[in-house]
Amino acid sequence: MSTHRLITLLTDFGLKDAYVSVLKGVIAQINPPSAVIDITHEIPPQNIGAGRFCLMDAYPYFPPETVHIAVVDPGVGSIRRAIAIDCEKGFLVGPDNGLFSGVLSRDPARKAVELTNRSYWRTPAPSATFHGRDIFAAVGAHLATGVPLTEFGNEIPLESLTHFPLSVCIPIPEGFEGYIQYIDRFGNLVTNVPSSILITQSWSVRVGDYLIPSGCTYSDVEPNKLIALAGSHGWLEIACNGGSAQAILQLEIGKKLQILLT
Amino acid sequence: MSTHRLITLLTDFGLKDAYVSVLKGVIAQINPPSAVIDITHEIPPQNIGAGRFCLMDAYPYFPPETVHIAVVDPGVGSIRRAIAIDCEKGFLVGPDNGLFSGVLSRDPARKAVELTNRSYWRTPAPSATFHGRDIFAAVGAHLATGVPLTEFGNEIPLESLTHFPLSVCIPIPEGFEGYIQYIDRFGNLVTNVPSSILITQSWSVRVGDYLIPSGCTYSDVEPNKLIALAGSHGWLEIACNGGSAQAILQLEIGKKLQILLT
Amino acid sequence: MSTHRLITLLTDFGLKDAYVSVLKGVIAQINPPSAVIDITHEIPPQNIGAGRFCLMDAYPYFPPETVHIAVVDPGVGSIRRAIAIDCEKGFLVGPDNGLFSGVLSRDPARKAVELTNRSYWRTPAPSATFHGRDIFAAVGAHLATGVPLTEFGNEIPLESLTHFPLSVCIPIPEGFEGYIQYIDRFGNLVTNVPSSILITQSWSVRVGDYLIPSGCTYSDVEPNKLIALAGSHGWLEIACNGGSAQAILQLEIGKKLQILLT
Repeated sequence: MSTHRLITLLTDFGLKDAYVSVLKGVIAQINPPSAVIDITHEIPPQNIGAGRFCLMDAYPYFPPETVHIAVVDPGVGSIRRAIAIDCEKGFLVGPDNGLFSGVLSRDPARKAVELTNRSYWRTPAPSATFHGRDIFAAVGAHLATGVPLTEFGNEIPLESLTHFPLSVCIPIPEGFEGYIQYIDRFGNLVTNVPSSILITQSWSVRVGDYLIPSGCTYSDVEPNKLIALAGSHGWLEIACNGGSAQAILQLEIGKKLQILLT
Repeated sequence: MSTHRLITLLTDFGLKDAYVSVLKGVIAQINPPSAVIDITHEIPPQNIGAGRFCLMDAYPYFPPETVHIAVVDPGVGSIRRAIAIDCEKGFLVGPDNGLFSGVLSRDPARKAVELTNRSYWRTPAPSATFHGRDIFAAVGAHLATGVPLTEFGNEIPLESLTHFPLSVCIPIPEGFEGYIQYIDRFGNLVTNVPSSILITQSWSVRVGDYLIPSGCTYSDVEPNKLIALAGSHGWLEIACNGGSAQAILQLEIGKKLQILLT
Repeated sequence: MSTHRLITLLTDFGLKDAYVSVLKGVIAQINPPSAVIDITHEIPPQNIGAGRFCLMDAYPYFPPETVHIAVVDPGVGSIRRAIAIDCEKGFLVGPDNGLFSGVLSRDPARKAVELTNRSYWRTPAPSATFHGRDIFAAVGAHLATGVPLTEFGNEIPLESLTHFPLSVCIPIPEGFEGYIQYIDRFGNLVTNVPSSILITQSWSVRVGDYLIPSGCTYSDVEPNKLIALAGSHGWLEIACNGGSAQAILQLEIGKKLQILLT
């Protein structure tokens, strides 16, 4: 067991309390030389959708076999399962509540287990409200040392995994209809329309009363003007040159919009 | 000196400025391979009580001999002492202002020194306002390499350490009276009533006009309802299933409450 | 290439999204054992001035040859150059927009290149809006392994680097006139007046209707009173004992003030 796989953490724990450090302390006790990278801990409390997006977004940039521990877990202590999944490009550890749906839509699962083997937990009598500390961090740390997946519990059918699907954008006569799936700290509005479908065409975006031109980068429009572009996430996004599109548009996640091909 | 003890940092420096990175740069210059884990840097400015709670909370999850550097230091540059303490399960480095009281109530000090040996400081002429950088980070980094505690200065009597006590909860005819000692980012209200005293009994919590039932986990009540439970910190806490208890109750730290045994 | 230089990151990406972790994933793929320290990611979006200050502030505390990757990049995808600079005490990687002016005013450049060699980028076809991921993180990681600077592109004249100067304070009959260059999380107001010019004299600060006495440390005045002192950054700063000077004074960055020698 001389492996030291990279570990990432994604939670809704925030940074004001000591919770994140407790996960890292537990990991350090089990697998001292492990390197841990924070994806984010600022997922809004219990917002599985935002967690699903951020994990999907970061996942492809990590080395093969990275162990991703993700804890956005409103059902902690209830009957939702604790799981670990072996994918082609990495491992996933966390609650079975759909948090992994985004990653799994791009990197399908090869094998999944329910975390029932208490000898790999931090304690056989875990807290009812902090499985991140007592189960997921401990299992992730052991997995990073090279413990085989099937050691952690019984294999479960892949089709039994909770699926919280990403909606796809819909063809309409004028082009496509999609919606806002994420809003980042810059006020960029990330849609669910893959950039790849727009490669060869001229297009614009209609949302509410706005008609937004497309371009390649922010500075293709005047300062403080809106622009739609193929964003770095791989999705079409709405931005503002030198400002925040969200400050202008004031939209909610889920808001519909139309891509108009011209 | 081939030791590389784990180092943790807890401060009220926040993350918007470069201060935390300066501590890490100083540590990296002294002890390049040292691993540093952030407990939190979002302690409200100069709030020794919140720092005391978070350090006490995280401390037991770290490996033996971890060096905990903590800097919430409203008296920096005044006559308050700079100290390092050797406890059974770890080392503490920081100002002598009560910040370590929580840890010391659970893991008693074995030896303490005043940090008077300037050869282990970053500079013999430290800034009057940033001892975190010029004294604590440097001493912590040297301690992590294995320098013996007594190298850093003169031993001081353990009973001279500034003690900022945790109040204990008080027996009353109906059960116990305690108070809110911490409020986390989820709006969970952590009391000063140890979970251990409630093991065998049925109970509820009265706070203001509310009577709150007890349970084992969040989902033991309907969504958006209040519940009192044995929290993961080891204290009784008041939570809300799928929401924030604090958003409903709007209490302050220090607010009294009664545990009613039934 | 057995070198493993320390890497730092400074960005305006914030911590709520996955962006920072993506940089770290890219670095881990190229240079797995590299240690990465965050300077800050909370630079206000596109605020080159704040980025310049924080990088200058943290820079001297890191080991020689540290690779500093800094991304505050409103001109991403436009014609601004991507650059790497070799200074006496470290390397700088990022956009050529003045972000490095503060560091360069204290640690002059020895050599600079434009990052044109796509074989060191994450991909030869980078995103138009995320050069942090596709160019700067990848180049920084390679530089940390010991790849020579001139491998990354053509050398460019040092005098062609974009310079976003720090204004100097001006002698006036009563002493000096300067301005607020930075406001930290504690509400300390950092001026552009170097502490070194005040070594031997008695002085006070006039700003707006306030006349603020000088001292050595916060506790030299009563609680909640304003004080001016030689700050830990190396600049004169205005603070408040146990409170926030900014909460009292409500000033903006750029606000002028006078140092009165007495």
